[in-house]
Amino acid sequence: MKYRLGCQLDYSLASVSTFIFNICAVENESQTIIEENLQIEPQLEYEEYVTPFINNRYLRLTVPEGKLKISYQATVDLTFTKENPHEITEVPPSNLPLETLYYLYPSRYCQSDRLMQLAQDEFGNLEPGYSRVQAICDWIYNKVTYLSGSTDSHTSAYDIAVERVGVCRDFAHLGIAFCRALNIPARFVAVYANQLQPPDFHACFEAYLENRWYLFDATRLAPREGFVKIGTGKDAADVSFATVFGNVQMDNMKVDIEQVAEELRQPATGADAKRKSESLVYVPDENF
Amino acid sequence: MKYRLGCQLDYSLASVSTFIFNICAVENESQTIIEENLQIEPQLEYEEYVTPFINNRYLRLTVPEGKLKISYQATVDLTFTKENPHEITEVPPSNLPLETLYYLYPSRYCQSDRLMQLAQDEFGNLEPGYSRVQAICDWIYNKVTYLSGSTDSHTSAYDIAVERVGVCRDFAHLGIAFCRALNIPARFVAVYANQLQPPDFHACFEAYLENRWYLFDATRLAPREGFVKIGTGKDAADVSFATVFGNVQMDNMKVDIEQVAEELRQPATGADAKRKSESLVYVPDENF
Amino acid sequence: MKYRLGCQLDYSLASVSTFIFNICAVENESQTIIEENLQIEPQLEYEEYVTPFINNRYLRLTVPEGKLKISYQATVDLTFTKENPHEITEVPPSNLPLETLYYLYPSRYCQSDRLMQLAQDEFGNLEPGYSRVQAICDWIYNKVTYLSGSTDSHTSAYDIAVERVGVCRDFAHLGIAFCRALNIPARFVAVYANQLQPPDFHACFEAYLENRWYLFDATRLAPREGFVKIGTGKDAADVSFATVFGNVQMDNMKVDIEQVAEELRQPATGADAKRKSESLVYVPDENF
Amino acid sequence: MKYRLGCQLDYSLASVSTFIFNICAVENESQTIIEENLQIEPQLEYEEYVTPFINNRYLRLTVPEGKLKISYQATVDLTFTKENPHEITEVPPSNLPLETLYYLYPSRYCQSDRLMQLAQDEFGNLEPGYSRVQAICDWIYNKVTYLSGSTDSHTSAYDIAVERVGVCRDFAHLGIAFCRALNIPARFVAVYANQLQPPDFHACFEAYLENRWYLFDATRLAPREGFVKIGTGKDAADVSFATVFGNVQMDNMKVDIEQVAEELRQPATGADAKRKSESLVYVPDENF
Repeated sequence: MKYRLGCQLDYSLASVSTFIFNICAVENESQTIIEENLQIEPQLEYEEYVTPFINNRYLRLTVPEGKLKISYQATVDLTFTKENPHEITEVPPSNLPLETLYYLYPSRYCQSDRLMQLAQDEFGNLEPGYSRVQAICDWIYNKVTYLSGSTDSHTSAYDIAVERVGVCRDFAHLGIAFCRALNIPARFVAVYANQLQPPDFHACFEAYLENRWYLFDATRLAPREGFVKIGTGKDAADVSFATVFGNVQMDNMKVDIEQVAEELRQPATGADAKRKSESLVYVPDENF
Repeated sequence: MKYRLGCQLDYSLASVSTFIFNICAVENESQTIIEENLQIEPQLEYEEYVTPFINNRYLRLTVPEGKLKISYQATVDLTFTKENPHEITEVPPSNLPLETLYYLYPSRYCQSDRLMQLAQDEFGNLEPGYSRVQAICDWIYNKVTYLSGSTDSHTSAYDIAVERVGVCRDFAHLGIAFCRALNIPARFVAVYANQLQPPDFHACFEAYLENRWYLFDATRLAPREGFVKIGTGKDAADVSFATVFGNVQMDNMKVDIEQVAEELRQPATGADAKRKSESLVYVPDENF
Repeated sequence: MKYRLGCQLDYSLASVSTFIFNICAVENESQTIIEENLQIEPQLEYEEYVTPFINNRYLRLTVPEGKLKISYQATVDLTFTKENPHEITEVPPSNLPLETLYYLYPSRYCQSDRLMQLAQDEFGNLEPGYSRVQAICDWIYNKVTYLSGSTDSHTSAYDIAVERVGVCRDFAHLGIAFCRALNIPARFVAVYANQLQPPDFHACFEAYLENRWYLFDATRLAPREGFVKIGTGKDAADVSFATVFGNVQMDNMKVDIEQVAEELRQPATGADAKRKSESLVYVPDENF
Repeated sequence: MKYRLGCQLDYSLASVSTFIFNICAVENESQTIIEENLQIEPQLEYEEYVTPFINNRYLRLTVPEGKLKISYQATVDLTFTKENPHEITEVPPSNLPLETLYYLYPSRYCQSDRLMQLAQDEFGNLEPGYSRVQAICDWIYNKVTYLSGSTDSHTSAYDIAVERVGVCRDFAHLGIAFCRALNIPARFVAVYANQLQPPDFHACFEAYLENRWYLFDATRLAPREGFVKIGTGKDAADVSFATVFGNVQMDNMKVDIEQVAEELRQPATGADAKRKSESLVYVPDENF
């Protein structure tokens, strides 16, 4: 399915400043970039860095005092499979691919080491597998209130576990922390989300099950089939849409995404979908 | 300089358990492994995983109920350069190698985002460069009491900044957090430390300055020239000497390291030392 | 019912030190001190301070370097009523006696302000009254693991709400925090507890319901009818059995309490029990 | 010196709600209420509760859905002494009046137990006495940035010690926590503050020295001689100007205070000022 998406970010700079942006769609097996366009005013050179394996694309630019406007647009083709959640198992630590072990350990906003007991209490008796991670999402959806402005950039999973209010990044952090506490590798995913209202960058997470990464979202704010991946990391610390070094104020931010009308391609079914572990794989969203 | 080093870890397992060990010396330009030996009782297969770029070596083994004894010995040759600290500058975010940016962001035990103001207060007016990172180490050495058993595996830099007591991993975490708060990439390093009393795994950190990673240790418990690197990560979460999945108790742990008597090789001086960024580079330790 | 109780505390002092002890049984309408005896070695003068209204008895003594042994024994007669829990209602803030409002506000170990949402989620839909506070105790008993040594003197209700492991003071703090979050005045109570194994000072709490304070204990380690009150406060910060100013080490601590064999007095029933609000009132413990 | 002061608070109530106000000037030896007036719209009955010893005045009223406007005005005469700070000593725990010990222990926003080491590091070597508490205030003034909106009602001294930014209540909490960590009884004081811009309720603290409570303010936002006491407590948890039970929104708040022009009475000097411990005693403010 094709999506036209993009963002525009406007800043006022009181001093020369350096920006690291993570706003471009990732290119991988399930995301193909048909076309894309980046415009920067004033015209400046910039560097692009693509991290190995997860293909996050970072742009760095150093901008003189004054104004900065950066616009990104792309047309992205998402392909996905439909799978039967009941056949998707957890993988014990003895068998996890060694490169996924990194995503088992706690991180700045996901203190899974401190949530072991709570995770065991709430989910320890559930059948391991996709359904258990879904249960984690349901728990968070039911118990945590989504409230804009209720948290900030210091809020972490530990806080949300007690205080029960947050925004999408907090829902993702708690999902990740619970998964890791149950020995399920989990990681943070920043996306453009089709149908998200109001339009904004969105945060969700992936858990490693069976033999690949599966996308989850405890907020239920938009269907996962319309998530175009921007960046993946241990948590929000790694994939901020903009990291700023300097005396800068954001004047305006616009994010948009819409489906491009076309003949719907039929999703491939399980047997056709031998994907490498970095693919976006999609299990039908029961909530939409 | 050559070191003979190793460890022995003994466990009792009440159930089949999986272990991830990070106990082998890293192999890189400044560390050459002359010989090494790994013994596991009972005899078991194990997997080894070497992370790209930083060359951490992880061993995974799944062990039946009963006993486990793992012994590692190695002879390692460390080479290093002597440099003049006054010539070693900080690199602004506009010029940092893009792959180091990852080490600017906060992590589980290094909440650099929350220590910005304190870092600015204490170090913001100092001349940027090697000496500023040394000042961070001096501050920590002078203000934080080293006390075994005073902290645990949940303790983080934020706690140490207020409570002022900890062990080597806490000293490292606070050093890393302060560096990152000043836009200096910093990372955690687990080492075998020659002359450390009592012998134990040791933690310190590296900061990225000039054009490479430099080793720092705020504890002053042993000279840095005798540090043999085991693992590098965002913080302690990434390089635990043993991560255990199962019902396991440690019965005994022994770590040792000694210098192998030989004719001392003269350290190369600056001009000879074109090293890649993963090299161990050493600035003479004024405290020994 | 009569109880013989007491404690002995032995200290080594490296310097002249001041102690504040809170180890004497309270004297009030439901606790009558038949006899008591305090011995201090070396023989020293001490001051006793009884706080108005709640009748906590504090002993202060300043002791020279050397040894200190303090022994307290008392025979105390506890009287209590049996009441029907179903008739015991909560009192809305509009009607609470004004002097109880103080016990609605958060304190050092009871961050009720941060547990509002969690308390509403778990208990907000329950019928207000004695049964709701009992439900709080049941929740804590079922979800928090009692484990000696798992916490320390800095641990607070907020930590227990997430980490789900603690000792009697932690169980009490969480019970108090949940009550206050639901606008039920609650306070910490230190007691001698008959049948507690191993023998030790014990912590529980009181909640203000109907027209008096009722005793609750989420640990179920001993029956409440055998609790002899030592001190009452906002939380543990107010009623430590020993507060020490100086370089002191505790060498030994012994606590004991036993029922004195006698003809059992029949407890007064509801209509006879017009008690002032400081009385110990007892609702039969269903767990024993 | 005479002050005319008062406040007006306007609320919209979506449901019947109970309010506890702490807005009336305290009456004690240094504060005489010449006249006062309380107006409530709609006209309602209310209860007043005066806490023993510290004379906090709490008003409770239950208000139907709709609007509430409460206005308080008073003319208050403040008397004070001038004392020589160099003669004002600290009192060791062995000699403190027993009723002040309560103010040595940690509270919700003043985790003095966790700030022991930091307090010792920064102030442990200073000469005990008034000057040491002044040094605490100077440290806070110099190191903590005053910034409206930077904190909230959950912020505590522990946070401020690290994050170094807050408002008047945070400055007070940190001052109290440091004092208690040094065994100086300290307590929170809510006041009307003459010359405070913009006009607002103000928070500061008292420390027990020599033989009475002395007023301190680390913010330097207004001279202490113009502080009219409203309430005293362990910390802000005890003396909120308004505690609300119900679905209520504040529409407007106005606070004012001005000096009433009159012939200045000369302050009594030391020898005349045998005051009970609840008196406001004032040491000349060097910062104004």
